[in-house]
Amino acid sequence: MDFEFDAKTQELQAAVRTFLDEQVRPAEPVFHEQLAHQSDPWAWSTVPVLQELRDKAKAQGLWNLFLPGEHGAGLTNLQYAPLAEITGRSHLAPAALNCAAPDTGNMEVLSEFGTPEQQEQWLKPLLSGEIRSAFAMTEPEVASSDATNIATRIERDGDEYVVNGRKWWITGAMDPNAKIFIVMGKTDPTADRHRQQSQILVPRDTPGVEVKRGMTVYGYDDNDHGGHAELQFHDVRVPASNIIAGEGLGFAIAQARLGPGRIHHCMRSIGLAEVAIESMCARADSRETFGRKLSEQGVIRNWIAESRVKLEQLRLLVLKTAWLMDTVGNTGAHREIQAIKIATPETVQWILDKAIQTHGAGGLSQDFPLARAYAGIRTLRFADGPDEVHKASLARAELRRQAAARD
Amino acid sequence: MDFEFDAKTQELQAAVRTFLDEQVRPAEPVFHEQLAHQSDPWAWSTVPVLQELRDKAKAQGLWNLFLPGEHGAGLTNLQYAPLAEITGRSHLAPAALNCAAPDTGNMEVLSEFGTPEQQEQWLKPLLSGEIRSAFAMTEPEVASSDATNIATRIERDGDEYVVNGRKWWITGAMDPNAKIFIVMGKTDPTADRHRQQSQILVPRDTPGVEVKRGMTVYGYDDNDHGGHAELQFHDVRVPASNIIAGEGLGFAIAQARLGPGRIHHCMRSIGLAEVAIESMCARADSRETFGRKLSEQGVIRNWIAESRVKLEQLRLLVLKTAWLMDTVGNTGAHREIQAIKIATPETVQWILDKAIQTHGAGGLSQDFPLARAYAGIRTLRFADGPDEVHKASLARAELRRQAAARD
Amino acid sequence: MDFEFDAKTQELQAAVRTFLDEQVRPAEPVFHEQLAHQSDPWAWSTVPVLQELRDKAKAQGLWNLFLPGEHGAGLTNLQYAPLAEITGRSHLAPAALNCAAPDTGNMEVLSEFGTPEQQEQWLKPLLSGEIRSAFAMTEPEVASSDATNIATRIERDGDEYVVNGRKWWITGAMDPNAKIFIVMGKTDPTADRHRQQSQILVPRDTPGVEVKRGMTVYGYDDNDHGGHAELQFHDVRVPASNIIAGEGLGFAIAQARLGPGRIHHCMRSIGLAEVAIESMCARADSRETFGRKLSEQGVIRNWIAESRVKLEQLRLLVLKTAWLMDTVGNTGAHREIQAIKIATPETVQWILDKAIQTHGAGGLSQDFPLARAYAGIRTLRFADGPDEVHKASLARAELRRQAAARD
Amino acid sequence: MDFEFDAKTQELQAAVRTFLDEQVRPAEPVFHEQLAHQSDPWAWSTVPVLQELRDKAKAQGLWNLFLPGEHGAGLTNLQYAPLAEITGRSHLAPAALNCAAPDTGNMEVLSEFGTPEQQEQWLKPLLSGEIRSAFAMTEPEVASSDATNIATRIERDGDEYVVNGRKWWITGAMDPNAKIFIVMGKTDPTADRHRQQSQILVPRDTPGVEVKRGMTVYGYDDNDHGGHAELQFHDVRVPASNIIAGEGLGFAIAQARLGPGRIHHCMRSIGLAEVAIESMCARADSRETFGRKLSEQGVIRNWIAESRVKLEQLRLLVLKTAWLMDTVGNTGAHREIQAIKIATPETVQWILDKAIQTHGAGGLSQDFPLARAYAGIRTLRFADGPDEVHKASLARAELRRQAAARD
Repeated sequence: MDFEFDAKTQELQAAVRTFLDEQVRPAEPVFHEQLAHQSDPWAWSTVPVLQELRDKAKAQGLWNLFLPGEHGAGLTNLQYAPLAEITGRSHLAPAALNCAAPDTGNMEVLSEFGTPEQQEQWLKPLLSGEIRSAFAMTEPEVASSDATNIATRIERDGDEYVVNGRKWWITGAMDPNAKIFIVMGKTDPTADRHRQQSQILVPRDTPGVEVKRGMTVYGYDDNDHGGHAELQFHDVRVPASNIIAGEGLGFAIAQARLGPGRIHHCMRSIGLAEVAIESMCARADSRETFGRKLSEQGVIRNWIAESRVKLEQLRLLVLKTAWLMDTVGNTGAHREIQAIKIATPETVQWILDKAIQTHGAGGLSQDFPLARAYAGIRTLRFADGPDEVHKASLARAELRRQAAARD
Repeated sequence: MDFEFDAKTQELQAAVRTFLDEQVRPAEPVFHEQLAHQSDPWAWSTVPVLQELRDKAKAQGLWNLFLPGEHGAGLTNLQYAPLAEITGRSHLAPAALNCAAPDTGNMEVLSEFGTPEQQEQWLKPLLSGEIRSAFAMTEPEVASSDATNIATRIERDGDEYVVNGRKWWITGAMDPNAKIFIVMGKTDPTADRHRQQSQILVPRDTPGVEVKRGMTVYGYDDNDHGGHAELQFHDVRVPASNIIAGEGLGFAIAQARLGPGRIHHCMRSIGLAEVAIESMCARADSRETFGRKLSEQGVIRNWIAESRVKLEQLRLLVLKTAWLMDTVGNTGAHREIQAIKIATPETVQWILDKAIQTHGAGGLSQDFPLARAYAGIRTLRFADGPDEVHKASLARAELRRQAAARD
Repeated sequence: MDFEFDAKTQELQAAVRTFLDEQVRPAEPVFHEQLAHQSDPWAWSTVPVLQELRDKAKAQGLWNLFLPGEHGAGLTNLQYAPLAEITGRSHLAPAALNCAAPDTGNMEVLSEFGTPEQQEQWLKPLLSGEIRSAFAMTEPEVASSDATNIATRIERDGDEYVVNGRKWWITGAMDPNAKIFIVMGKTDPTADRHRQQSQILVPRDTPGVEVKRGMTVYGYDDNDHGGHAELQFHDVRVPASNIIAGEGLGFAIAQARLGPGRIHHCMRSIGLAEVAIESMCARADSRETFGRKLSEQGVIRNWIAESRVKLEQLRLLVLKTAWLMDTVGNTGAHREIQAIKIATPETVQWILDKAIQTHGAGGLSQDFPLARAYAGIRTLRFADGPDEVHKASLARAELRRQAAARD
Repeated sequence: MDFEFDAKTQELQAAVRTFLDEQVRPAEPVFHEQLAHQSDPWAWSTVPVLQELRDKAKAQGLWNLFLPGEHGAGLTNLQYAPLAEITGRSHLAPAALNCAAPDTGNMEVLSEFGTPEQQEQWLKPLLSGEIRSAFAMTEPEVASSDATNIATRIERDGDEYVVNGRKWWITGAMDPNAKIFIVMGKTDPTADRHRQQSQILVPRDTPGVEVKRGMTVYGYDDNDHGGHAELQFHDVRVPASNIIAGEGLGFAIAQARLGPGRIHHCMRSIGLAEVAIESMCARADSRETFGRKLSEQGVIRNWIAESRVKLEQLRLLVLKTAWLMDTVGNTGAHREIQAIKIATPETVQWILDKAIQTHGAGGLSQDFPLARAYAGIRTLRFADGPDEVHKASLARAELRRQAAARD
């Protein structure tokens, strides 16, 4: 057992940290300024300063770090995880390094399951950062934690598939540069529970694709990373060759996609929590009430200590999960992948709320990034199903394991 | 001891409930439609449908119910409290009945401390609903929980006062129809701790008054009730007769204003929490996951039960506080006024969060009023100082009381 | 609505408080000394000093205050509730005033449902404080929250009933002076769900009654109020006339018994919580760490404030429940009776735990009454079924109510 | 970074687990039986079956595993930590393997700081398991979290030291076989803050040593591991050579002792939590209410999942702390040593409480080990000072670290 990162990881940590401090941080206000003056408020991914950041990142080899294998940087999950933490410190960093969701998951899927033609057409421009993408799974009418509930249909008609359905919370899809959607739907509602679903490539400009509106999270439309779209597919026709991996494999692909995405999300959230703790400490040291600094007051100290204690534990669990994925695979790491999904949003939300409280009413406003961060983290408690579903599932696994041990 | 409302209260509860259901609810979407199509997004208080609601309310005698004494409906705090709860069920209701903050507090102050001239000029149009107002107390640079920290200056210069300072979180002040600001500042920084402050009337259109920007809460700008402005006062000159009650009385007036406002806020928050419970139950009954209704699942049932148990306790405490204010006065009710300030936001926020979680990701969006309500309640944990200040103060009172009992 | 106790209640509060301070408190150490030197450690109820206290209480008319109607003091639930709170301040007070559980419930049952003969034989000596009693309902093998699970059999055989079964957690039954047990069992397992059970009087000295052992709560055997016995009934024969009210009425009687008992328990628990707050304040004022009194430290102040805020709310809910029972009856108060069962142990346990923490390790020891009180309150979270069962039940009622309102 | 234990550790884990299952578990009821029939209820360490266990452990080389260096098994903290977890599963296991507190800490101190004579006289019989010992630091009158508060005096008088003072919560000291006490007191109250204290060896049978009483924890006297004594030292004279390491080094020795002890305590607590989870799962699978197994109910599943998620995180933090102690030393691991002190009791107590609740009232009784375990863990929240002191201290360190990073 050894808790030290390997040399390559430490080197990359330093490089990403430097890039963040020297390139990304100064670009943040410029980005928002440029975005605010664009005609299309949703076209965030083509804002000039972000393009420049991407060129610099590419030049420094800080590009596609998330992607294992030949198409990417070839890092293990454990090597990439601490880099993801650093990118979580700035909402601009993931895009600057081409490691922003949902493109990351989509690139993984295309890299692992795509045909050479699909890779040529969609993976290549995604890897180069030329276009962006979305993953259309969640539906408004049904509990999306239960994949068998999916109502969107993908029906074969000659050389084509016809897609019909309604999706929402499709992150990134408001961006006109999100040129390709991976859509989850049912090709065969009569098949076995987990063989009914397929994933298919639907180019944004296909007739019948309607981008209806952006969902808001609390009051944020998240236009600076593509929003969360409601989409309607009206008899959308795409070539049969757009299916990914084959009919009936939609559920399996979704599962494969889960693990790495969770690590990324969790580590970025941890990066955010570190920013919150820094902010809480800085505020507490600079603000006085009733003649004493906030940092000298017991309640604030409690929050700081508890934040640190919670976060140290959480990070170790996420890192161990990454290590398990690298050593025994996603299936072997299943229990831990669920555990970090449960633990991370709750812990980070708690820390953010205390950081907000330390900042007074300003903490809720546009003057600090805390309220916005809180909103983002709060949505994670619904991602891939609400906390309660994940807890019930983890408990079933524990009960089975314990029952087996008793026998 | 008797837990039944008196006959007059019950009659008014029925009337306000009917008005809410028959008049206010149907007007809500119309209001937002009309507001969205106005040239000035902040001019909410003059939207036509709201004007119509006000006329109807006035015609039915459901007008200025909050105000005791000759200028208002003459109800006690205990009689008005359950009516405030009902108005909390719709964000439009308080304005429709002319009992929306901060006008209520401002009318109370003018009614109790204003000169006949001040009342003629400002109280009259406020009572009739013709104009609106704001109360400018909170400042960005200092912890506003500590009134001695106030930095805004009100200096006598001949027949005038000159106001200089910066305020923020001034609710309602973005509305151009908020014609009058009551501004808290220091007239004599060398006086005793609680005699340094004064309150003064500053008409919105006085030269030197700058409305700088609206603060956001999570992402909401709250334009539908006048936002939360940052204001700058640059050498603003008003007649000396604009001082309220006299120099050095600002702190005392602020204290007097506190009690009733707390009751109103708390009861409206309770109304909101009732809406959240209704919404949670309706959702839980209508949604299935994994073959069972949410309302049949233990965790959801726990939330519903705990919400009910918490809310029943909270309401009784607020009502008792209103009763104490009526029977022994604000000073005698001091401990309870603090207790409800501590208890209400925490309880209602908890209930709202569970209601959100029951609604899935939609609960965070514009499709339900829950996330917006959460944001509003969250700000209450900073109003008149953060929770922690109120807790410390209540604890000091308890410690004193216990020490006296031990002697 | 009126939050003031009536004159009679206020007068009795003063009398009980004086009796507690002047008579009961000084008797506490004497009681423990005398109990420790008795040959039978379980024979608590006949300890001399307790007998003397009872004589004084009787002489002052502070006797059987809990019992409405002709047999008792004739107080309403709302009148008795604040007196129960005062008795909760000393573990000796309830017995001194003959208002200790489980005798109170047993006297209520005999008073309401007993035959004249049963009343003569058992109610009379209970009312006079001559003997004590127990109520044998809970069983080890089954979840006792579900009355249909009861396994004890009460079978008719000629002029007798034969009782067989096993009970545990039978409070008070270790005391040899607990001369009579009211036993719940099934007379007809084939009847309707709630008509299978009966209650029957079983004198302690009936052949076949075996008092097996005392259960401990944490490490306490509670010998100073009769412990919690495990009982075995082996072919125990009692006259047929010992049945209470008639076969099949056991469930109904148990329900009738619930309401007042809950009020008593909850109010006594509130009295205990007041003692804990007093103790926490006294300790915080007298103890220094790192140069400052505990009472000047923010975390401790938070605890004190939150304790007060929680307790004020809780007391009002219990009092309202008592008022509802008096005005609309137990059935009309059903929801509130459940709510106080859920709220009270959780709140009081929280307060006790904070009081313990304020006392340092001593708080867990025999030197303070706090750990013992915590243990007692913790058991309430299982009384009549665990919290979770009560929450689920209250939620079902809320869901039904809300569904009805939606229609 | 690598989360796998090394080969030696895995081998020892298997051996200790086997010893626990095959030797210790079957001995537990025998031990309690034999202890109950001894004349001295405190003489637990010489109970025959425990002696036999010790002989077997010694024969298998499972002896003094906790002790690094030549005197012990020579394991690192990281190697021993998972073994401590296994011993936490049985209250008899630590003593059976001669790795029970407080002997472990005392042996560490004598091994590191003792003179050859002190080692010959006291370390040797402790290492062989012949005698036991106690560590007398905590005092009743002062907050023991603040070492400068210590009131016990150790005064030089010729060739002797004279010890005067009162101690309590001296674990193990009720056992007559605890032949030697290491006593902390002040040799020079005028020296620098952390140079005033010394540690000295006081044999139990020295004139003037009075073992006054055992403290109880909740109701437990913990006679099966030596209780928690209150001690009085009345002019106790010991040879000057009994001082450990020299005058003024008491604080430094106490600090050195802290780290390993924390790891042991925390890992044993984690073992206890694992037992609680097992017990919770077994109970939930075997018990039905209202027609469904507890293990199928959402609330119980939540508890199981949350227990697992909390415990996995906690264990990783403790292991990382052990690794840090091995690689950068106690000082380098200071922050983590504090963090595990804060996190462990809170987490394990939470899990135990849920396990109790799952067991119904029985969970609080002598029929399950849960309530007793809860009591033991609860005391850890005061060990070496209450949680609040540790949190404040960790927060100060975090604030300093953040302030340094901002510069």
